[in-house]
Amino acid sequence: MEKGTEKNQSESSDFVKQITKKSDDFSRWYVDVIKKAELADYSSMKGIMVIRPYGYEIWELIRDQLDKMFKETGHRNAYFPLFIPESFLKKEAEHVEGFAPEVAWVTQGGHEELEEKLAIRPTSEAIICSFYAKWINSWRDLPVLINQWANVVRWEKVTRPFLRTTEFLWQEGHTVHATYEEAEEETLRILDIYTTFCEKYLAIPVISGLKSQSEKFAGALKTYCIEPLMPDGRALQAGTSHNLGQNFAKAFNIRFENQNQELEYAWQTSWGVSTRLVGAVIMVHGDDSGLILPPKVAPLQAVIVPISRGNWKETVLPEAQALFQELKKNGFRVYLDDRDTYTPGWKFAEWEMKGVPVRIEIGPKDIENKQLVLVNRLNRDKCFVKRDEVTAALEKLLEEIQQRLLERALDFREKNTHEAFNYAELMDVFDNRKGLVRAGWCESNQCEIKIKDAAAATIRVIQDKKDERFKRCSVCGAEAKHTVLFAKSY
Amino acid sequence: MEKGTEKNQSESSDFVKQITKKSDDFSRWYVDVIKKAELADYSSMKGIMVIRPYGYEIWELIRDQLDKMFKETGHRNAYFPLFIPESFLKKEAEHVEGFAPEVAWVTQGGHEELEEKLAIRPTSEAIICSFYAKWINSWRDLPVLINQWANVVRWEKVTRPFLRTTEFLWQEGHTVHATYEEAEEETLRILDIYTTFCEKYLAIPVISGLKSQSEKFAGALKTYCIEPLMPDGRALQAGTSHNLGQNFAKAFNIRFENQNQELEYAWQTSWGVSTRLVGAVIMVHGDDSGLILPPKVAPLQAVIVPISRGNWKETVLPEAQALFQELKKNGFRVYLDDRDTYTPGWKFAEWEMKGVPVRIEIGPKDIENKQLVLVNRLNRDKCFVKRDEVTAALEKLLEEIQQRLLERALDFREKNTHEAFNYAELMDVFDNRKGLVRAGWCESNQCEIKIKDAAAATIRVIQDKKDERFKRCSVCGAEAKHTVLFAKSY
Repeated sequence: MEKGTEKNQSESSDFVKQITKKSDDFSRWYVDVIKKAELADYSSMKGIMVIRPYGYEIWELIRDQLDKMFKETGHRNAYFPLFIPESFLKKEAEHVEGFAPEVAWVTQGGHEELEEKLAIRPTSEAIICSFYAKWINSWRDLPVLINQWANVVRWEKVTRPFLRTTEFLWQEGHTVHATYEEAEEETLRILDIYTTFCEKYLAIPVISGLKSQSEKFAGALKTYCIEPLMPDGRALQAGTSHNLGQNFAKAFNIRFENQNQELEYAWQTSWGVSTRLVGAVIMVHGDDSGLILPPKVAPLQAVIVPISRGNWKETVLPEAQALFQELKKNGFRVYLDDRDTYTPGWKFAEWEMKGVPVRIEIGPKDIENKQLVLVNRLNRDKCFVKRDEVTAALEKLLEEIQQRLLERALDFREKNTHEAFNYAELMDVFDNRKGLVRAGWCESNQCEIKIKDAAAATIRVIQDKKDERFKRCSVCGAEAKHTVLFAKSY
Repeated sequence: MEKGTEKNQSESSDFVKQITKKSDDFSRWYVDVIKKAELADYSSMKGIMVIRPYGYEIWELIRDQLDKMFKETGHRNAYFPLFIPESFLKKEAEHVEGFAPEVAWVTQGGHEELEEKLAIRPTSEAIICSFYAKWINSWRDLPVLINQWANVVRWEKVTRPFLRTTEFLWQEGHTVHATYEEAEEETLRILDIYTTFCEKYLAIPVISGLKSQSEKFAGALKTYCIEPLMPDGRALQAGTSHNLGQNFAKAFNIRFENQNQELEYAWQTSWGVSTRLVGAVIMVHGDDSGLILPPKVAPLQAVIVPISRGNWKETVLPEAQALFQELKKNGFRVYLDDRDTYTPGWKFAEWEMKGVPVRIEIGPKDIENKQLVLVNRLNRDKCFVKRDEVTAALEKLLEEIQQRLLERALDFREKNTHEAFNYAELMDVFDNRKGLVRAGWCESNQCEIKIKDAAAATIRVIQDKKDERFKRCSVCGAEAKHTVLFAKSY
């Protein structure tokens, strides 16, 4: 070891001690893990964070997969301005009312005061609609299927890394159609993409459905959303898909000549998911030792740790390097941890904390026996695999972990979904248990307000199909019009 | 044809008439092409544009390739805040002096006035360095090799789509090293990546080299740049790579403990290219009929136009569809133009205007003869190829076009690079010819100012190696210290 390279070595348990236990204090665990795994860091500006490379790489994998799914369904990307003139934002009345309190305003450009102040987009309907009004003239121009990947700013009071930050990254789709039916079809197509993506790639099951009128997007006709359940029993709004109806078309005068040469207002949708998804992945899968990343969105799917005893640099390292090249060539996201300033034990703990799904150990004995050790991050199970079967074994283990994570999350949701047939039962869940509560609802905002005040809980989704067992509104006892899922939320 | 679907059809020449001739008025041609090919559109806000899907797809191809090259050389992406507190921007004296006049300022968040106003990043050194000061402690933390893809805002007075806009998209690399030599090596590595990328992917040859002190980046020790020559004889600064020395490290206190346990200021680089590259592609390759896109960054490399006579939907269309599927499967970016509201002639002109490198025509005769017609956008040469050899033929033709575009641009640059050994010769080029002028320079800022005043020309790059034929400064006649290239610029 070179001079100055020795670092204070400690057992892996020391490493983990720096993270609050998930079971002790979920909120602190969340922040500790983000900091320790170098996913993000706070800036000196309130609620503004930097996404560090390891966190950004998760987002890149999320983005690339979603982008592929959007393109396969005919969407194209574009880039619209960051700024929205105040007058544009004001055109749709509900929209400005919803967003004005959280807008950051540019009032000065260079040394001049601006004549009209500019909003930094909190969402881009207002600026995009101003272009659609110019571009769309005829039924031949429809549908318009555009998405953009962008940063947005919402001046939030209470923030938390990835879940709610003043600036965040997202995608926002903005589509225009000739009929209500086509717009509704698009809204549901995207809801389906979001649902599939969360389950298949993030290993996070979601409930999906309509929002109540009081919870819908400011300016929309209808809002659909996906809501996974978090380990603390709260639901997280992880993505939304809005049928905007003709609200924005009327406010921005987006009209087209139909096939009968009549002018009609167009029908629109908008939809988005954000870096909040990274927060969901952290919360749902992690454990007391740190992150656990689903293989499909793990920046590193496997890390190779050579057992560094004796003359390992001459004996073990070349074998580890050959293994690294082979796995990389076969398409795995893999890293060889050949640092000589840390012990294997330290490295094990570090990569566990960083949530790498599989650790591959290779030592002199393993080379002799033409084998490797694969360690599963989920349960720490070790298995020996033949050196020449490593590709197939790793692929299989990654699939298993991906599958197991989803099952575990589904199982958690099952156990934490309750039913309430009256007010007492509803309040009992909020007071004494945690999770989602299925219940009847009469459709009145009154009842929503009552539950919000009493339990800080809201209707997360209205179920697609009414469950006839819930005959009465769980709040007021009147006839139930819908079956809904209540929960506390982020 | 259905009711209402018939569109006023006209000859291809009409289509092209809507674009000013490149040779008549280069500036108007540029703006016409951008608008007509739907690459971008102006907003109502001064100097702010939207990048439409067809323009954004060019940027996506540029971004993905560069991103690959950055990652192959060990760089990782991250995302830093859009906002920079005013006090941070002021820390490096030259930096704030250079950028303050063009900063957009946020002064209001929600309904509150901010205590400290926030700059929208014109470039991110000031915010990124504030994090590096926290993250970097030891030589073990170095090098830091981070890049980000982001939007930036510079409040510009004179703007032009893609070339200079108030908001634009770019990548900015920010690296930290233990020594000057490593930082310089990184600066040159990136300059090399930029040069290779422009020549190999954009088919644009560039001259590269050091900027003079008066033209360097505000806060840098040295700025290197790449400068392609545009058809109007002006040079375009298309990318820069800065060796920042320890300037920012000292301003932001970025120090690390070296291997001798001594604290040292770190050495940094930063480098960037932007959506300006899309502007360069448009200008360099286009012609009187519109865009010509190099196949490697063309969103569509080939468009299939079925010859729509008689019962073409039963006879020709199925063959065209099979061809489309085959080419797509083989990895080509291809489009089948099966619109029945336009004639083939109209489609030919539209896709030529949009710069698609190859048009594939397929008609009843071609099907009979088991052949296809490939048309080269560059010279409109037609060639017949056997149906079952289309993949190889298309690949070859795309390569030829890519190669030919580079040769043509190189040839143009050769013809428009002049030499001047004294002031009269220098001014003769600026007054009567166009392009780059190779000349001697004494290294005084005085001489730079004189040429700027007299001819609105500047030193674009200082040649790496002095050319001994240029013994005297072309401006003042003193001894030449460097050989430089002068030009007017964007």
